[in-house]
Amino acid sequence: MKIVCSKDQLLEGILITQKAVPPRTTLPILQGILFDCRDHSLYIRATDLEIGIECRVEAEIVEKGWVVLDSRLLGEIVRKLPPEEVEITVNEGNIAEIKCANSRFRLQGQSGEEFPQLPQVDGEKSLSMPQDLLKGMIRQVVFACAVEETRPILTGALIECSRGELSMAALDGFRLAVRTAKLDSLNDGIKAVVPAKTLNEIQRILKDTQDNVKIEFTGSHVLFGLENTRVISRVLEGEFINYRHIIPDEYGTSIRLKNIDLLESCERASLLAREGRNNLIKLNITRDVLEITSNAEIGEVREELAVETEGKDLEIAFNSKYLTDALKVIEDEYVNIEFTTSVSPCIIKPEESETYTYLLLPVRVLS
Amino acid sequence: MKIVCSKDQLLEGILITQKAVPPRTTLPILQGILFDCRDHSLYIRATDLEIGIECRVEAEIVEKGWVVLDSRLLGEIVRKLPPEEVEITVNEGNIAEIKCANSRFRLQGQSGEEFPQLPQVDGEKSLSMPQDLLKGMIRQVVFACAVEETRPILTGALIECSRGELSMAALDGFRLAVRTAKLDSLNDGIKAVVPAKTLNEIQRILKDTQDNVKIEFTGSHVLFGLENTRVISRVLEGEFINYRHIIPDEYGTSIRLKNIDLLESCERASLLAREGRNNLIKLNITRDVLEITSNAEIGEVREELAVETEGKDLEIAFNSKYLTDALKVIEDEYVNIEFTTSVSPCIIKPEESETYTYLLLPVRVLS
Repeated sequence: MKIVCSKDQLLEGILITQKAVPPRTTLPILQGILFDCRDHSLYIRATDLEIGIECRVEAEIVEKGWVVLDSRLLGEIVRKLPPEEVEITVNEGNIAEIKCANSRFRLQGQSGEEFPQLPQVDGEKSLSMPQDLLKGMIRQVVFACAVEETRPILTGALIECSRGELSMAALDGFRLAVRTAKLDSLNDGIKAVVPAKTLNEIQRILKDTQDNVKIEFTGSHVLFGLENTRVISRVLEGEFINYRHIIPDEYGTSIRLKNIDLLESCERASLLAREGRNNLIKLNITRDVLEITSNAEIGEVREELAVETEGKDLEIAFNSKYLTDALKVIEDEYVNIEFTTSVSPCIIKPEESETYTYLLLPVRVLS
Repeated sequence: MKIVCSKDQLLEGILITQKAVPPRTTLPILQGILFDCRDHSLYIRATDLEIGIECRVEAEIVEKGWVVLDSRLLGEIVRKLPPEEVEITVNEGNIAEIKCANSRFRLQGQSGEEFPQLPQVDGEKSLSMPQDLLKGMIRQVVFACAVEETRPILTGALIECSRGELSMAALDGFRLAVRTAKLDSLNDGIKAVVPAKTLNEIQRILKDTQDNVKIEFTGSHVLFGLENTRVISRVLEGEFINYRHIIPDEYGTSIRLKNIDLLESCERASLLAREGRNNLIKLNITRDVLEITSNAEIGEVREELAVETEGKDLEIAFNSKYLTDALKVIEDEYVNIEFTTSVSPCIIKPEESETYTYLLLPVRVLS
């Protein structure tokens, strides 16, 4: 095998692919990156057997072949090479020689044959959407996925297409985040739960561009296809919770206020909530004043915000992290929060857009 | 006690002072910052009993007093306050009320009386120099201080004034870094070993300005005085090594090359040196070519650089970290390296400036 490519393009491909390399593994070959140029192009590939990432890198293929090279070391080497052409030659013993300007590395590799293949995803069902839209949807939803594995299905987000609308939803027993989007052409009947880990990796790879990403689904896998990159992941098995009926459609109290003001007040109140180790902040709505309080052994905090209120006065308590998580991903200047009672879930919505809904359970406190 | 000051100035003072707060301590009061406004100004102060930092913060003193507040929590609170005026009131129970815009915090503090006093440093001997010069000197020297405490005196750098020259020197048994500077007015006879930890903190506080810093010495302490900040540290006791006689003044081989080229080649070679766990890189000078090699079980690297050589060919090996440490702090475009034999120390000097000398011991290798 012998190839010539630019340092920058090679590095970009390695950095993307490396995201699939497991930090620890009992299968040493997975700590490698596969260089596959058995055809007319160079593909580099890595996988932890759950997620696989493949990048096509512009390269002149002088001699076809394949090899697996240590991901971490290779990444560090290529990063430190001068910005020139890189020549990689692999001999029959899988020893790779990497030449660039006056540098020459020799690295022991492994045969490409030993590297696991990525599953075929043939795209029975698929959809295309702008990269920036998918990136934004993931950002607004993925943090609400469950972290603990007690109910594995909740460690992923449900992606669903029905009635001309794409929706992404995640919930962890304390809160629910749902984002919807209208797309031009939609393949009805798509329904898959994609692991949060996959969505987080995809979010890092997606660019803030309206160029499309194509998403293909089979019963067991999902494939995200970008221009030069393909990410393949298994989907989670099982039935997702039917969350739509738990979103209340009536409220007793509704407030409207600036998102940034609420976020900053909650963050300050969190400082003591965290000291108290329970993360608890109390919201007290009295006419057009929202008071946020929190206390701990070392002290207490009281924040006062002017709000527009509709309905009854109310006292309610939340885990401050669950509240700020949502405020951080809402881009509108104003938010509306709708409450029913102090022991039932509230709904946070950006004022201008109908496409995001965040439901949050309160914490019961003895007052 | 009652004071009013701006959020930004208060935060700046807290951030500087916090550097003296110990991360762990058996004396809980040291995790606090003392607010001392018993006079017409606000001084905030912290110490770990080795280093003490005091900042004067612009404030309106409405009522005199003092209090100790938890450093970490206070820092987080002030950082998150809106950029407005901050009012701090302390009642007789040492409870501080911090008000800013619509936020109100109450924090349990401790009496200022319980906070340790900083030592008096009356400045029997002193010198003044531009902040940026001191900052640069520390940067070029302090990394060569010993980390291990087997010879405590080597965990500091020697600051000395003699024959109209200020010098700073550090050595750890493997390398020696010396930086000198001519100053206008010098107090001959200054000789003190300042802990590396103090110098590192001072380096962070110093600004890239030609404004002066005044350094005062007593037998046991040193004081660095800036406009609004004073840093007081103990000095190390004992006799520093007389390093001047270990710097060779003759050489058998000398090379001249671009600093950045050598640094980058060494960094690439280090990647495998590190894999080999001994950090060993070999330099081979053959006429006007410098070859740098390193190897490990997984592979090897060879770098080739054009150099201007004077004297004999030479093969020598180094711990790559000790070599790159020096190259990183040399600002000149070209460096000269002078060698005697493959088992005696070499000298690295910036080409243009006479003020920096770095001596490095080679590693003996069986070749």
